[in-house]
Amino acid sequence: MSDTCVLVLDTDPLPDLDRLSGRARVVHADEKSLAERLPEADVLLVWDFLSDAVREAWPGGGPRPRWVHTPSAGVDRLLPELADSDTVLTNARGVFDQPIAEYVTGLVVAMAKDFRGSWELQRERRWRHRETFRVGGTRAVVVGSGPIGRKIGRTLMALGVTVDLVGRTEREGDPDFGRVHGIDGMNTLLAGADWVVCVAPLTESSRGMFDAAAFSRMKPGAHFINVGRGQHVVEADLLEALHGGRIAGAALDVFHTEPLPEDSPLWEAPGLWISPHMSGDTVGWRNDLAVQFLDNFDRWYAGEPLHNVVDKGLGYVPAT
Amino acid sequence: MSDTCVLVLDTDPLPDLDRLSGRARVVHADEKSLAERLPEADVLLVWDFLSDAVREAWPGGGPRPRWVHTPSAGVDRLLPELADSDTVLTNARGVFDQPIAEYVTGLVVAMAKDFRGSWELQRERRWRHRETFRVGGTRAVVVGSGPIGRKIGRTLMALGVTVDLVGRTEREGDPDFGRVHGIDGMNTLLAGADWVVCVAPLTESSRGMFDAAAFSRMKPGAHFINVGRGQHVVEADLLEALHGGRIAGAALDVFHTEPLPEDSPLWEAPGLWISPHMSGDTVGWRNDLAVQFLDNFDRWYAGEPLHNVVDKGLGYVPAT
Repeated sequence: MSDTCVLVLDTDPLPDLDRLSGRARVVHADEKSLAERLPEADVLLVWDFLSDAVREAWPGGGPRPRWVHTPSAGVDRLLPELADSDTVLTNARGVFDQPIAEYVTGLVVAMAKDFRGSWELQRERRWRHRETFRVGGTRAVVVGSGPIGRKIGRTLMALGVTVDLVGRTEREGDPDFGRVHGIDGMNTLLAGADWVVCVAPLTESSRGMFDAAAFSRMKPGAHFINVGRGQHVVEADLLEALHGGRIAGAALDVFHTEPLPEDSPLWEAPGLWISPHMSGDTVGWRNDLAVQFLDNFDRWYAGEPLHNVVDKGLGYVPAT
Repeated sequence: MSDTCVLVLDTDPLPDLDRLSGRARVVHADEKSLAERLPEADVLLVWDFLSDAVREAWPGGGPRPRWVHTPSAGVDRLLPELADSDTVLTNARGVFDQPIAEYVTGLVVAMAKDFRGSWELQRERRWRHRETFRVGGTRAVVVGSGPIGRKIGRTLMALGVTVDLVGRTEREGDPDFGRVHGIDGMNTLLAGADWVVCVAPLTESSRGMFDAAAFSRMKPGAHFINVGRGQHVVEADLLEALHGGRIAGAALDVFHTEPLPEDSPLWEAPGLWISPHMSGDTVGWRNDLAVQFLDNFDRWYAGEPLHNVVDKGLGYVPAT
């Protein structure tokens, strides 16, 4: 079986790949050569997970590759093309939970305490005491009930925040949150939220969900945080909400176009904090992602069931 | 008893003072008139708790005032003068626990995730992905085992940080922390800390405790956070540690001289975050502080024991 072919779409070098030696032949492709290489692959590792090349190069239904792994939580850059084939799709569920929960919690406190205002005053050597906001006792709506959203919710609760978790469908009896709200109930919840956090998978139904109508339902003091996908947000509507003072502030880690173009009006929108799609990327993350793939390869090679198999209809790994 | 005199050292108006009417006569003083007014006071409320005027105006041992209340956690601006009289001293223990714990936790995450680096890049419209640090799994030493230090410790633990709490004397069996380390053991702990947080009361033994020797024991990647008092830190030594890359960064909310003078070299020290003594000051804080005093006045007027009585020898309210 050492003629198993693992095709790697990469730009950066992949750590620890010699764990495959004796079991698989590794072939590398870039965006240009991908279409040509795909037919010989048994396994495709989308190491360059920000690339859209797989959708473009996808050969259609057929036996190969039998397994595609993306080292990201979102699989939106692979669907719907892969949905129509028998190919098994796996993702990086788990790796990003703690880092992104830390990141979002830090944003909430930094906004409540106006850290950016302090930093701007420091640049000007100005001492100006302000009263800031208490985080404990505020209310957050976290849209996305996968493991990252759950971890964000639990971490905010540890700071004394009341959290409403929103998933695809309403359910009761959740061990951490009691009720998980359905997406149909989101609009009602928005009116009571101090913090609205988007960490949903990007699907046809979630695309553009944060639009003028959604922002108009939020409180004037509310802050919006997006660590999901840029396409969840109608950026022009967010700009209008910020310029009009409709909401108090926002933080975006993801954008329609990445890197965010230098001439984007988002850079200077009032109360908007921009970071370059890095909320989950802590030192050692690439190694963690490589190990996660290689562990799954061990299972695949041994004929065992893979971990983190995506439901390609839903667009994410269903809760077990 | 309506000839009870409550003297208020104030600059800002004090909310809700009419709760005293019928029970006390309220007299206001500023720093200049304080010495003249003090002899007539039964109760002194140091509403301007950043003032050093009380120490200067203090008449020495004697029957009046019988009770002094400071709406701050630290009582260092009143000692040692008050220690030699029978006057009862109370403080604002409790009001600042949650806000300061939030503030410190936010600083830890903001430093780990390089939020300031992201703001600087945003100002320049530059997209530059970086790997940041995971907070979970790091180690913090919190110096100060009063309610604020304990709340900081518990909040960091909720983010997955291992916390060593340092108090005056070592003790075992703490319900939250197991062992509380004695100040004698601090130097050993510093070598293992990613985060060193000072929230100790300022006493003769804690003055200047963060000096060149202390910074030299920390890891090159360590960050130091001071929400205690400026005098805990030898500022020149901290500057040297930051300029020499001896530690990775620091955040100061308190300073030897407040407001921090415009020509202070601290404003531009590498990796130093400056805020204007506001870590505990959330919207409504003045009201909370006034209510805390007025509740204690109810007890005093009824002849009941006061809450938050400071041990003037120790310089803080001992744990019950």
